[in-house]
Amino acid sequence: MRKVKVAILGCGNVGKYLVKNIFELKDIIRSRYGLDLEIVKILVRDKKKQRTINGFKIPQELLTSHFSDIMKADPDIVVELIGDIDSARTFIKEALKSGKKVVSANKFLLSIDDEIFSDPNVLFDASVGGGIPVIRTIQNAVPDEITEIVGILNGTTNYILSSMESGLEFAEALEQAKKLGYAEPDPSFDINGTDAAQKICILTALCFGIRVKPDDILKEGVSSIEKIDIEFAKDFGYAIRSIAVSRKKIYGNEEKLEISVFPALIPYESPISQVKGNLNAVIIKGKRLGELFLKGQGAGGDPTSISVLSDIIESTIHNKPYPKRSFSLSREKLIQPDLMISKFYVRLRVVDRPGVLAKIADSFGKHKVSIESVLQKGRGYGKEGVPIFIITHECVEKDFKDALEECSRFDVVLDAPFYLRIYE
Amino acid sequence: MRKVKVAILGCGNVGKYLVKNIFELKDIIRSRYGLDLEIVKILVRDKKKQRTINGFKIPQELLTSHFSDIMKADPDIVVELIGDIDSARTFIKEALKSGKKVVSANKFLLSIDDEIFSDPNVLFDASVGGGIPVIRTIQNAVPDEITEIVGILNGTTNYILSSMESGLEFAEALEQAKKLGYAEPDPSFDINGTDAAQKICILTALCFGIRVKPDDILKEGVSSIEKIDIEFAKDFGYAIRSIAVSRKKIYGNEEKLEISVFPALIPYESPISQVKGNLNAVIIKGKRLGELFLKGQGAGGDPTSISVLSDIIESTIHNKPYPKRSFSLSREKLIQPDLMISKFYVRLRVVDRPGVLAKIADSFGKHKVSIESVLQKGRGYGKEGVPIFIITHECVEKDFKDALEECSRFDVVLDAPFYLRIYE
Repeated sequence: MRKVKVAILGCGNVGKYLVKNIFELKDIIRSRYGLDLEIVKILVRDKKKQRTINGFKIPQELLTSHFSDIMKADPDIVVELIGDIDSARTFIKEALKSGKKVVSANKFLLSIDDEIFSDPNVLFDASVGGGIPVIRTIQNAVPDEITEIVGILNGTTNYILSSMESGLEFAEALEQAKKLGYAEPDPSFDINGTDAAQKICILTALCFGIRVKPDDILKEGVSSIEKIDIEFAKDFGYAIRSIAVSRKKIYGNEEKLEISVFPALIPYESPISQVKGNLNAVIIKGKRLGELFLKGQGAGGDPTSISVLSDIIESTIHNKPYPKRSFSLSREKLIQPDLMISKFYVRLRVVDRPGVLAKIADSFGKHKVSIESVLQKGRGYGKEGVPIFIITHECVEKDFKDALEECSRFDVVLDAPFYLRIYE
Repeated sequence: MRKVKVAILGCGNVGKYLVKNIFELKDIIRSRYGLDLEIVKILVRDKKKQRTINGFKIPQELLTSHFSDIMKADPDIVVELIGDIDSARTFIKEALKSGKKVVSANKFLLSIDDEIFSDPNVLFDASVGGGIPVIRTIQNAVPDEITEIVGILNGTTNYILSSMESGLEFAEALEQAKKLGYAEPDPSFDINGTDAAQKICILTALCFGIRVKPDDILKEGVSSIEKIDIEFAKDFGYAIRSIAVSRKKIYGNEEKLEISVFPALIPYESPISQVKGNLNAVIIKGKRLGELFLKGQGAGGDPTSISVLSDIIESTIHNKPYPKRSFSLSREKLIQPDLMISKFYVRLRVVDRPGVLAKIADSFGKHKVSIESVLQKGRGYGKEGVPIFIITHECVEKDFKDALEECSRFDVVLDAPFYLRIYE
């Protein structure tokens, strides 16, 4: 039986579950993997604090508040679950310098630190998709040319959007998500797409070998979606989900990469639109493999800790690590957002008067945005006005934005037009 | 760059795609995994025959019809894609004896040969779920107590059953499946559940450490399902799918294993019921991980060859293999089919006369089978008679079968009653 010494940095929710599960799953890990995992030290801020999880008490004698104690315990593997940037980065680099393997769930750090990300001694399956082995699958099970990866990578927004299907407005759904612990007290990184952007950047580097930073990609939040958008979508056979996409697409004669996070109308038939509550899901498209769909618990201490544990096991069984994760840092491959081609959904609040629709349609036409369908439904939207819903054919982003901009200047258009992309 | 020599036994559909893909993906495999794969020999019956796939010509000089040439080429890995029992078994054992790693997609052999199955130098991801990394995920990504695995493991029956949803009778759907190449000329192993039984036995050993042979498990085919069953199911919110299940369940005070293959009514909300065409899917339930759902191409040369390729890569990167796959051979843990508890759907063809339903309901009641709902719908079912549909509450298999047996002896019941299980 091979003994493997594990040190853990941070003992928050995932950390506590990890400790508990390493104790509870001892026999399974011994028999399945031939490994005897031993936790040698756990780094915490306050080592006097009692930590329990589901009745399991974290052994007090394992706690330390000094990183030097971690290194003195001479672990084979250092698991980083602090989640911040500065101390996590320092500790990980020190651990790597001393020849340790590192397991981290720190999506923020991994999405911005090239040195740590490219080091094959760092494994980070839990940084994307919680308990779903998205990264493990890409790395170990898809030796194929990947053409696209698309998914729901943020459980908070998915909970909110799927709750709105039962008639809630955004603010009510968010309130509910907070109550259930699916949203942080400050949920802005979830709602504005930052969290999913970090994750899709990690996946992009693994799938396409191109490293792009979260700030460089198209990113749209979900906070302006209203109940009537959900209702319209439903009537027309769509669900609204916030998705992260990274895909190769031919623009002109060139193959470009589209990387983006945005709420989209998705046809009901797509498995992505069936993902409800705080679940996560991804579709990995391989040229030969076809579409592989994965769905599961995208967050939560217990599932995420299983993912961390699988990285711990993985890092012990390789005779040599994978080659350095190589990627180009160039952004040339990235399509300029202005040139992106999409279908759009538009909601306008307009004055209820003859000729309004013609005026809007005319403006769209002038900007080469062709309309697939239009619906004017009901009355009394806002204080005055009626809603108009438009679905466009595929058009160039800049043309579309120009058309919207023009429409927003019409007297008869009461608010700034609202739009969502359509993902098919 | 590490050089890895690969020999392939058999060059049918999957074999041809594998050769093509190893050539085409050379650069990707070098950069992602640091491996230089070289095919050294391919064993075929007729080495003169020209073999091409999608315009790619299998290099004639790699072909041999003698296994001794394979061993002389001194491969690191022997890939077995013959698919029969006798020669595959002989070749695999000889390869293992010479210290080779073996990759096989031979579900039949793996489900019955304990020595080969338990050898950690044998990898067989492609034996279950085609391009879906079911086995890889169980082995490398779910270090958890698994409580259940359930899935659609046979694409042929899934194609037939989901085609019947658009109004085809069984025979018509089967004919269509044959035309499209989704069903073999003799599809009996697919239709009677043998294929899925082999696969669920492999998964059971990996998930639960209990080795059961395909002949020992409950196995029900799909050939008696009629269009009206599909219609009834639809009206009541179910789809009919042939599923394979292996799960732990408490019977009395004992934890038993239920392993079975059967067509079932499955609620529409279940992701399993959404699986259409010849796709495969599984749900892996872990005590801590929750439900992990995987869906993808369950067959086909191209996707399956990617799965074989991922095994080839996997077998090169371990410093030592997993421990011997251990399992008990005892069948004590298996629930006796007679004692199984299920909900059932029943279709009877009865004489259209007052009192018939009461008679049937009475018989069910006498045998402790309680009825959840009954529907008598339409007329003119068969030459004479009307159909009655019944959904029961959970009941003991033996009681249910006794009730059916009694009903079948009633004059007013025109055919042997037909039943399906309900999986919720």
